[in-house]
Amino acid sequence: MKILIIGAAGMVGRKLVDRLCSAGELSGRQITSMTLFDYIAPEKPGADFPISTHSGDLSDPAESEKLMSEMPDIIFHLAAVVSGEAETDFDKGYRVNLDGTRFLFEAIRRQDYFPRVVFTSSIAVFGAPYPEAIGDEFLSAPLSSYGVQKACSELLLMDYTRKGIFNGIAIRLPTIVVRPGKPNKAASGFFSNILREPLAGKEAVLPVSRNVRHWMASPKTAAGFLIHAATIDLETVGPRRALTMPGISVTVGEMIEALARVAGQERADLIREEPDELINRLVSGWPRNFKAARALELGFTADASIDDIIQTHIDDELGGTLD
Amino acid sequence: MKILIIGAAGMVGRKLVDRLCSAGELSGRQITSMTLFDYIAPEKPGADFPISTHSGDLSDPAESEKLMSEMPDIIFHLAAVVSGEAETDFDKGYRVNLDGTRFLFEAIRRQDYFPRVVFTSSIAVFGAPYPEAIGDEFLSAPLSSYGVQKACSELLLMDYTRKGIFNGIAIRLPTIVVRPGKPNKAASGFFSNILREPLAGKEAVLPVSRNVRHWMASPKTAAGFLIHAATIDLETVGPRRALTMPGISVTVGEMIEALARVAGQERADLIREEPDELINRLVSGWPRNFKAARALELGFTADASIDDIIQTHIDDELGGTLD
Repeated sequence: MKILIIGAAGMVGRKLVDRLCSAGELSGRQITSMTLFDYIAPEKPGADFPISTHSGDLSDPAESEKLMSEMPDIIFHLAAVVSGEAETDFDKGYRVNLDGTRFLFEAIRRQDYFPRVVFTSSIAVFGAPYPEAIGDEFLSAPLSSYGVQKACSELLLMDYTRKGIFNGIAIRLPTIVVRPGKPNKAASGFFSNILREPLAGKEAVLPVSRNVRHWMASPKTAAGFLIHAATIDLETVGPRRALTMPGISVTVGEMIEALARVAGQERADLIREEPDELINRLVSGWPRNFKAARALELGFTADASIDDIIQTHIDDELGGTLD
Repeated sequence: MKILIIGAAGMVGRKLVDRLCSAGELSGRQITSMTLFDYIAPEKPGADFPISTHSGDLSDPAESEKLMSEMPDIIFHLAAVVSGEAETDFDKGYRVNLDGTRFLFEAIRRQDYFPRVVFTSSIAVFGAPYPEAIGDEFLSAPLSSYGVQKACSELLLMDYTRKGIFNGIAIRLPTIVVRPGKPNKAASGFFSNILREPLAGKEAVLPVSRNVRHWMASPKTAAGFLIHAATIDLETVGPRRALTMPGISVTVGEMIEALARVAGQERADLIREEPDELINRLVSGWPRNFKAARALELGFTADASIDDIIQTHIDDELGGTLD
């Protein structure tokens, strides 16, 4: 089985690569080769099968053409200009997130075979006002260019699938917590910062109130969603191929309580409240909770608790212990 | 006020042109010029203001560029490759219905002003299974390439509107009944055929059962929706700019009863039942009823009854009397 991962250098991409390299197989079929693609060259991990890495711009149709010449059995498409950048650079967002995705789908079409395509979408396809928990039949009315690009890509994926061009599934990831690495400037960054920084013994800033509720999954669980999406029987999924992934709906207050439980009160005390009006306003438009019934029926499983998400970060990123 | 109508040669386009030419004004502002564009050159109607007509292919970005150089105040975009053709000619459907629409939006963006864009979408953005009546928050999960192209265009229109590039509104037209002209091969054609042909003293074939229910509006009402969309205050509409237009939900049996009421039983007796399995299967996947609450709140008004729709056809297309 040949695997192509587009967006392999990103945070979720690297988790996925590691998982596939350790397993050496997918759906009981041995992985025979893997191609990793991203805007910056992905690192080449150790594995029992040949791995090639490439860097390039997905908005250049020649790149997809080249990648598809190897006719991979499974294509994971995780690449995207992130929401903040898609909002400030309108042209780049559409060029990469919409045109790039369509070039990929067209390159697959020209190969005349039937691979599986696993596409990472986002809960950014939804826009306020929401019901208290968003169900599987709720409309996509994005309030960002990124959300529009993801929603259009989902629609294209469904049409290419319906026409028998490939076998596609789009999974809408929850906000990923705890993102490893440095604090970033994304408006949603604080959800990770308030856990990751105290766990590393550092201060973190909380810009919103403790009763803010949001929808989350760990990086490990997100990589698991991708692998599950690549293996499940899609015959039973029907034509609606964009699925909201199960997450956990927790408040910032509950996150901080869990941090104290798992890592001690002194860690939780490293969080400094510094309300930011802009971030508060943005966050008030974000979804708080979902009923991800279809994904749950298909065997996608959320993290068990926010305590578990914190423990996963300690295990996977901090070597299992706190300093 | 300068008006541009793209898709002016189509059935609804011509109704719109006639209405605007008779009125001579829109929202109380005098129409100073009108440009009519279509794939085939639209007829030039009589009017008290200058009208220019152009033919061209909307999937050529130079066409939109030319059309926008006049900076029209209102742009009606009705042009589309129809659903049947978009299904059989995948490339043409995307080229005209998606790329063509985006080229138009980009040409507006380059002009750096703030016109209103009224875009005709379709109930084809919805796909089965449906609730008994589809509400304003129901997801777009099209089961045709045409529906995907319309749904993506709606999303783009919302993003361009949100970004302040233009002031857009997309209206999802019900199935138009009675379509004037010859019987056509569209699977939905029988909804018009079973009224129009008997009204002209001719036989018509009914390929489905009498309890098939569907969502309809007259051509006159559809043109009225477009004019209303061009005039209402969009400030109160919010970011969700794609609105399902109000129609009437009637069964084929009710249509035939109304035909007998309005035009006599001998006309209704001209309908021959000839069940067609393919058409029955297609129609079973079509929406039957909607709750078009938002559009109703905004003052869009459905036809009063199927009897009214038949009378409108007699008045507008048959000179007010039957032979």
